Amino acid sequence: MTTDPLVIFTPSGKRGRFPVGTPVLTAARQLGVDLDSVCGGRGICSRCQVTPAFGDFPKHGITARPGALSDWNAVEQRYKDKRGLTEGRRLGCQATIQGDVVIDVPPESQVHKQVIRKAADARPITMDPATRACFVEVPEPDMHDPTGDLERLKQALKDQWQVADLRAGLPVLAKLQSALRKGNWQGTVALFQDHRGGPAQLLDIWPGFHDAGLYGLAIDLGSTTIAAHLCDLADGHVLASSGVMNPQIRFGEDLMSRVSYAMMNPGGAGEMTEAVRVALNGLIQTLTAEANIDPALIFETTFVCNPVMHHLLLGLDPVELGQAPFALATSDALTLPASALDLTTVNPSAQTYILPCIAGHVGADAAAVALAEQPHKSKDLVLVVDVGTNAEILLGNESRVLACSSPTGPAFEGAQISSGQRAAPGAIERIEIDPATKEPRFRIIGLDMWSDEDGFTEAAANTGITGICGSGIIEAVAEMRMAGLLDPSGLIGSAEQTGTERCIPEGRTHSYVIWDGSAEGGPLITVTQSDIRAIQLAKSALYAGARLLMDEMGVDHVDRVVLAGAFGAHISPKHAMVLGMIPDVPLDKVQSAGNAAGTGARIALCNAGARAEIEQVVRQITKVETAIEPRFQEHFVAANAIPHATDPFPQLSRIAPLPEVSFNAGGDGSGGRRRRRRG
Amino acid sequence: MTTDPLVIFTPSGKRGRFPVGTPVLTAARQLGVDLDSVCGGRGICSRCQVTPAFGDFPKHGITARPGALSDWNAVEQRYKDKRGLTEGRRLGCQATIQGDVVIDVPPESQVHKQVIRKAADARPITMDPATRACFVEVPEPDMHDPTGDLERLKQALKDQWQVADLRAGLPVLAKLQSALRKGNWQGTVALFQDHRGGPAQLLDIWPGFHDAGLYGLAIDLGSTTIAAHLCDLADGHVLASSGVMNPQIRFGEDLMSRVSYAMMNPGGAGEMTEAVRVALNGLIQTLTAEANIDPALIFETTFVCNPVMHHLLLGLDPVELGQAPFALATSDALTLPASALDLTTVNPSAQTYILPCIAGHVGADAAAVALAEQPHKSKDLVLVVDVGTNAEILLGNESRVLACSSPTGPAFEGAQISSGQRAAPGAIERIEIDPATKEPRFRIIGLDMWSDEDGFTEAAANTGITGICGSGIIEAVAEMRMAGLLDPSGLIGSAEQTGTERCIPEGRTHSYVIWDGSAEGGPLITVTQSDIRAIQLAKSALYAGARLLMDEMGVDHVDRVVLAGAFGAHISPKHAMVLGMIPDVPLDKVQSAGNAAGTGARIALCNAGARAEIEQVVRQITKVETAIEPRFQEHFVAANAIPHATDPFPQLSRIAPLPEVSFNAGGDGSGGRRRRRRG
Repeated sequence: MTTDPLVIFTPSGKRGRFPVGTPVLTAARQLGVDLDSVCGGRGICSRCQVTPAFGDFPKHGITARPGALSDWNAVEQRYKDKRGLTEGRRLGCQATIQGDVVIDVPPESQVHKQVIRKAADARPITMDPATRACFVEVPEPDMHDPTGDLERLKQALKDQWQVADLRAGLPVLAKLQSALRKGNWQGTVALFQDHRGGPAQLLDIWPGFHDAGLYGLAIDLGSTTIAAHLCDLADGHVLASSGVMNPQIRFGEDLMSRVSYAMMNPGGAGEMTEAVRVALNGLIQTLTAEANIDPALIFETTFVCNPVMHHLLLGLDPVELGQAPFALATSDALTLPASALDLTTVNPSAQTYILPCIAGHVGADAAAVALAEQPHKSKDLVLVVDVGTNAEILLGNESRVLACSSPTGPAFEGAQISSGQRAAPGAIERIEIDPATKEPRFRIIGLDMWSDEDGFTEAAANTGITGICGSGIIEAVAEMRMAGLLDPSGLIGSAEQTGTERCIPEGRTHSYVIWDGSAEGGPLITVTQSDIRAIQLAKSALYAGARLLMDEMGVDHVDRVVLAGAFGAHISPKHAMVLGMIPDVPLDKVQSAGNAAGTGARIALCNAGARAEIEQVVRQITKVETAIEPRFQEHFVAANAIPHATDPFPQLSRIAPLPEVSFNAGGDGSGGRRRRRRG
Repeated sequence: MTTDPLVIFTPSGKRGRFPVGTPVLTAARQLGVDLDSVCGGRGICSRCQVTPAFGDFPKHGITARPGALSDWNAVEQRYKDKRGLTEGRRLGCQATIQGDVVIDVPPESQVHKQVIRKAADARPITMDPATRACFVEVPEPDMHDPTGDLERLKQALKDQWQVADLRAGLPVLAKLQSALRKGNWQGTVALFQDHRGGPAQLLDIWPGFHDAGLYGLAIDLGSTTIAAHLCDLADGHVLASSGVMNPQIRFGEDLMSRVSYAMMNPGGAGEMTEAVRVALNGLIQTLTAEANIDPALIFETTFVCNPVMHHLLLGLDPVELGQAPFALATSDALTLPASALDLTTVNPSAQTYILPCIAGHVGADAAAVALAEQPHKSKDLVLVVDVGTNAEILLGNESRVLACSSPTGPAFEGAQISSGQRAAPGAIERIEIDPATKEPRFRIIGLDMWSDEDGFTEAAANTGITGICGSGIIEAVAEMRMAGLLDPSGLIGSAEQTGTERCIPEGRTHSYVIWDGSAEGGPLITVTQSDIRAIQLAKSALYAGARLLMDEMGVDHVDRVVLAGAFGAHISPKHAMVLGMIPDVPLDKVQSAGNAAGTGARIALCNAGARAEIEQVVRQITKVETAIEPRFQEHFVAANAIPHATDPFPQLSRIAPLPEVSFNAGGDGSGGRRRRRRG
């Protein structure tokens, strides 16, 4: 009696014995090895490619001889001749086991493959899409045992793909009969499986084997910008990313002005809903054109957004979000047909998933940040700050997570700043001020050199030096503070007080000149007293929110800080801490997470299990409402000073000089009375 | 130790002991007594009215003393004062048990009340609607434990109504917040529960207690006529019924010509879909206007229709239904949003249920007939014939049911008949011909007297005598056969052959004059040879279908026959049998069921359990395809004679004379060679 051959799959290490002649795909499935297949083992799709390894494997205790897999059969050979196959690869559904063998499943053959995210420290996204393609053979109709084409497809999917139940909407039902006949009773279907269970949904069908791919859109619907990634639902690859302004801006710059517009104007909410939906359809067209993808191949969209954007996207009047107790119409995650949002440019059966909201002021964007940054799995106490017009703030670790939002306003994005502009070529993004000479040097977006380097002026002529973007203004204000041009209360000193002619009078206050381009017809770029005040308001709101969560958690410091948001990634941690935007931590404990909300949308798009995860996590997050909390006001006032009126910043004081200056001329009572060095 | 009082509910006979002070509604619920409540026991809806009985009840072994129920409390008294309460009635949720008592639940207080159908022998419809109203109290939002209004409603429905899970579409979500606030956190919701399980669906919400009713439409979508009943979903009451012509008639009179239109004209199927949906919206407006009902209170529609109508309603190309193997796109029952069918006149969240199709030629109308007539529960072998442009034929008993359809054409409905007209005032509907004098007498629709009675001419002047309707032509042909004016082959004799001047020449054939109104400017109403041929084709198709099923069942007779269809109810059984439309059975075994398909639609509308029932029954029905069955052609040819060329009609011969005549002049070979008396 001989023993069946032993098969060892790598990288999983799963192993088992199988009778000679067992296809590798069958063995993999029986062992629960993650090996993909769309065509169901018919040698068409090539998703089940494996790399057999031969020779001695002392680690596994076997020797794989050259004949351990079957010779190439006709199907496998035809595939190789027609479509090509990488050297060393075999089709797992065709090659059969003939002897002991080690079989490697390359990442691209795994269903639950991981998508590496750009940031080095970010965890990868594991693919587990809600929509997948399946090749299926459907029995022909039998007049004497009549059933509908859909019912036979349903049975075929049950038999061939273990799909327990199936529903189909009318748009795909209208294509069904011609597709099955054109494909000679073979077809490829797109199936959507809601993570909450229930029947699978038939989204589309194509004749025969269809390999054009299934795509999805992860959309970060912000108050100011709508950003979207077009992703391949099979491997998570981002084919195109784009953003447009949110056209609702014409109804109001910030959230509360849009809520007011809805309250004051009958039908106003509807106007804003229509505006954003039109913009979304345009954005989808842009993305699909850029990626050269048929928009009808977009089967899923995921949305993250703040509560007001959430309601306006859904066509819900946001009026209740403008007043206590800030009740959402619905807070749970939503799975809807994309057509319910008038997304006419995608597949007519496409599905939309909207992440859950945490509270009336803490939206699906905050949930997405939690999904991307996973504070609920952190061993140390992490503060995640998503910097935007509204800041979403999360504080927690694996035992407890708190969340709030804070109305920072648009100053961090360069709005309401005299020389502010959006991040575009020509904008000052980095700045240093010499504490001795008080002279600045800076870098602009699009140019990889400092302004005091040779050839800068010539090179900058391309774009001009046009203004200061969000990260630039934070650095400018912090550098001014470190250089002694700005006192703790936020007052800019005069030329006499500071010893530099760059401090020029502006009415009863002073401005600091960073760049005077007026000789060449360019702008005079300064930081004005009013700019400082705007930044102070914004950073105080941010810090006060974080402090409120720390109070609730009963701590006076955090272990690390994550700066998130499209803009958060560009903030210099040192400068943010000099400003007092974030609590005092060691500098190497401040990380940038990029657009964590957008990443959360991508995770939810690529992984249906992540939808269940975030729905569960959100239920366990403790919500803190800043808008009516008296301590928020106290924290806000105390945070007005740079970096802070009362809180110690011991880590900061070790790395950055904060000169004891005061430029109080007696007319400004908000600060400047303290002259001791902070620390 | 005292014993708790004994409560006996009638008519159910359910009994139990309950502590003093238990509300009657609570006791009823604990015993599983069918006692309605919309307001959940708040003394608002009055649906839980009961009639307590006092005195000696030897049958139940108790004596109910006057104080066996509590005195009227403030809530109950206020209800009585404001809204009134029938003498002897109490509100079950307010009156509490104080001693032994017998409590009668009147029919209108039962959820599963029965709706008596018009026909005396029809079983009643038991109410078990998929959509119901529930009054609910929702907790107010709490800023410190924020959840959406929908989530709190969901929890309230779980707590107060045991609704396990809830989903809401955007139209109702958009109304939710204002309704809850307007109702001071009380509201009435319309909930739809799919009979296949899954979460309940929130269809609508109103502030406070809403008692405007929920309505539904049962729609019989025929090739020629669309008929609809507007029903109250609480008690099944029909508020209005109406019908319109199917506007698809302009694309083709019968089913196959519509399929041809779809095949020959790109977009033709879509044109027909749009036409029928527009007509449905118009019909709904007519019905709601007639019943003075807000169309937004229509929450459900059920459809029965043949397969071609089914596909065109759904926007599916019917081309496959025009050719073997007659494959349906989908055969199972469908639950869809009404909006998917562009039914814009109903509630935006309204649901549609379409009964299952049995086969490519045997549609949801046949399934509805099965639901109404229940052949699968019959002890004897019943043949159910739904007479229309296509006849749906069911044969079976509790052990087996067979089904087919047969293309009878429109002759039975008076179309393709020289003096044919639809059933309207002035149409001849009944006719008798004296076998001795060969003189006819008749009745017209709208006049309750025979044409040979005194005063008929004057009375008929109102409407005129305008033509012959479907039931009239069947009687006319059968009476002609019995009076010896027509031979078994279907030839009309000449005046010489028949001895009456009413047989007049028409080309090479003859016609029989029923009424000559030409002197008064009215029509000459005759039955022509061509009319006879049309009726022969129609009745042969019907009989051949029935015979095919009998062959399949292995029987040569049936126990009883049910004539269904809007028109079936008006057919005289004797005349139908003389014609040979139906197999020979004792005359008292031929029943009329009225519009059984429409009744099936009403049953499915009022009883969600019936949906599950018919889906189950349909799976067990054996389908017989007439279109490609050679024996169908044989049966069809043999059935051309009147009543039949070969089958004996022993029951018929006992009650109706069938003279042995032959008018064959040698030119017609289809019959007339047999002269023996049938029997």
